[in-house]
Amino acid sequence: MSDLIQKAELAKSGVRELASQTEESKNQALYTIADALVKNRKFILQENEKDVAAARERGESDALIDRLTLTEKRIEDMAEGIRQVVELPDPVGEVLEEWERPNGLNIKKVRVPLGVIGMIYEARPNVTVDATSLCLKTGNAVLLRGSSSAIQSNRAIVRVIHEALRETPLPETAVQLVEDTSRETAGKMLKLNDYLDVLIPRGGAGLIQSVVQNASVPVLETGVGNCHIYIDESADAEKAINIAYNAKTDRPAVCNAAESLLVQRDWAEKHLSGLVEKLQNAGVEIRACERARQLIPGLKAAVEEDWGTEYLDLIISLKLVDDVEEAVAHINRYGTHHSESIVTESQGNAAYFQQQVDAAAVYHNASTRFTDGFEFGFGAEIGISTQKLHARGPMGLPALTSYKYVINGNGQVR
Amino acid sequence: MSDLIQKAELAKSGVRELASQTEESKNQALYTIADALVKNRKFILQENEKDVAAARERGESDALIDRLTLTEKRIEDMAEGIRQVVELPDPVGEVLEEWERPNGLNIKKVRVPLGVIGMIYEARPNVTVDATSLCLKTGNAVLLRGSSSAIQSNRAIVRVIHEALRETPLPETAVQLVEDTSRETAGKMLKLNDYLDVLIPRGGAGLIQSVVQNASVPVLETGVGNCHIYIDESADAEKAINIAYNAKTDRPAVCNAAESLLVQRDWAEKHLSGLVEKLQNAGVEIRACERARQLIPGLKAAVEEDWGTEYLDLIISLKLVDDVEEAVAHINRYGTHHSESIVTESQGNAAYFQQQVDAAAVYHNASTRFTDGFEFGFGAEIGISTQKLHARGPMGLPALTSYKYVINGNGQVR
Repeated sequence: MSDLIQKAELAKSGVRELASQTEESKNQALYTIADALVKNRKFILQENEKDVAAARERGESDALIDRLTLTEKRIEDMAEGIRQVVELPDPVGEVLEEWERPNGLNIKKVRVPLGVIGMIYEARPNVTVDATSLCLKTGNAVLLRGSSSAIQSNRAIVRVIHEALRETPLPETAVQLVEDTSRETAGKMLKLNDYLDVLIPRGGAGLIQSVVQNASVPVLETGVGNCHIYIDESADAEKAINIAYNAKTDRPAVCNAAESLLVQRDWAEKHLSGLVEKLQNAGVEIRACERARQLIPGLKAAVEEDWGTEYLDLIISLKLVDDVEEAVAHINRYGTHHSESIVTESQGNAAYFQQQVDAAAVYHNASTRFTDGFEFGFGAEIGISTQKLHARGPMGLPALTSYKYVINGNGQVR
Repeated sequence: MSDLIQKAELAKSGVRELASQTEESKNQALYTIADALVKNRKFILQENEKDVAAARERGESDALIDRLTLTEKRIEDMAEGIRQVVELPDPVGEVLEEWERPNGLNIKKVRVPLGVIGMIYEARPNVTVDATSLCLKTGNAVLLRGSSSAIQSNRAIVRVIHEALRETPLPETAVQLVEDTSRETAGKMLKLNDYLDVLIPRGGAGLIQSVVQNASVPVLETGVGNCHIYIDESADAEKAINIAYNAKTDRPAVCNAAESLLVQRDWAEKHLSGLVEKLQNAGVEIRACERARQLIPGLKAAVEEDWGTEYLDLIISLKLVDDVEEAVAHINRYGTHHSESIVTESQGNAAYFQQQVDAAAVYHNASTRFTDGFEFGFGAEIGISTQKLHARGPMGLPALTSYKYVINGNGQVR
């Protein structure tokens, strides 16, 4: 039997036992894992060093090596992340609705775990720990498939998790690492409908699109954010400049950062130069439409491709528009349904924008940077969904659950 | 441009307009369509006759010809079905949650339409009407791809719908029929992620599995039901016999009919012969395990394949088990996560069964036949989901919606 199928069977073998764990058992197991990671940090760091050395030898980028590298501090942060998940309420077992039918049948809609969650991710070993804690807290088993570049680190982490689980009531089978990191095996994992209830890809746009295009297992699509700030005619200049500046520069590499600025032409005539100056002073490269370049000479010209690009960098595209209708049409054409914001003092235009823009989070007078599990008050998240089925926007613990109908009768037949 | 892409673009072109329709507009449009179908019944019947004649010529089965054939009565039933959808509450616009963050951001979780729904179905022209009414009521556009055997009927129905829509505020583009019914085009439709938000296959297990295996668009998997009745040691004999009989014989061709009977061995010694006799008197063929055949000589032997078969016919498999644990293990191995029932007077065993069985609907002392939108009180349904993401069990109107977060601030930045 292949490594993949063997691990998938192991993961599935424990799902019934996992689904019936109490919140206390699950929390205790999470604490045990957190402590074990810290206690075994030397072992994990030593194994991680092998991955880092191999990556250096292959001449990988500094960015990849940074994502790959663990430190004592990073291991402690991972453990702290697990303890934060312990603090979140357990959604499993919640009775979402209950009603009685005229024939006397009592119907309860009860939250249950999904079963086995397949995680496909890149070089960050911390995803191994994050995914494990969120899945275990919600009573799910997890089949982890990380990058080959992190295989020694992931093996070490999962070994520590297994040792910790042995001291708890949770089945050790609940966390499984696919050690065969070949592309062929990844392709097979996408088709494991008999074992996996959902696949969650975490990583760049290429990885996510490859999973979406090729998986037959249902996918939770996360992450790609070509987010816009639209500054309307009546926008307060200070709010508008602060919001655009924050959304672009606070953390450019994350999915809720702004990638494109749409500015109503009359507002632009009065205030655009101030905004451009502030962005340029922060080192932001602006790629502008022709009308904006006429207003502010010297800006680099945007090409068609810019409107659809998620830069994840200190670059922003800029387009002047006639009105909110043009802004909405542009966003619905080029956006990725993640986070979009209008800055305006017009309630009518705000309402129109929030109704018509097709995105997970639509803001009025606030930065797109708030689309985040912690900022929404959900706590740790498994990702930000940009699809419309199942879960949209920041996905907290309930996104890792399904429900079943539990129906009680006394002999009813049709 | 191909017929498929042209229709997909038309469907998508109207989604923003559709999403902002009031409940009144949508209801008025549905009434107009219902009336138009009845008014134009001669035209529809005349076009349907072409499909039926062609099917006869090809030597199609009586069952297919029956599903394909329209009559005045069937058209009136379709119109009546639309009027029932009008009566259901419109879920769109519902504020599911609303809260305020410490920084003053107000967050609303608001129900919105999915966008464009792709329906792939077989020879029943009534699905064209059912899908249209459920999609329009929830503010969705629909891209219909029916069977080539029903193409004249579907064209006629969609032509009548378009004429009706022209008299309403809804965009005529909201309902689109793919007229190229080639297999190649169906394959392309499964990959239309830029146009479709979800695919819903309606039909036999072959069609559904082909869509699940090949689609990159998210799928709502419906329908296949290998449902079990488990009769526990303490089951009341009358309840058990009535429930098993009803679940098998009331309507054997539907997905919530029972396909397999698991009987605790002690109960079987006392009461199985009575149950078997009642089933046989109704013409049910029983395919039994070895132990059951020793108890009741003359029963046909079951083979391994029987445990996984959805007969959709007056056939049932029968297996004796030692206890509820064995029953649950069998169901979780062979079931399709649709509907499962335990008959028992033991609350403990009922609770164990309902907790451990992994299915959309898990019954205690009731027939599996109740898994149905009307029986649950939801009204008309788009299908019964056997997957765990997004929606499980009978899918009423809310299953055709998503949500967005609408966030209002006064200049907040991170």
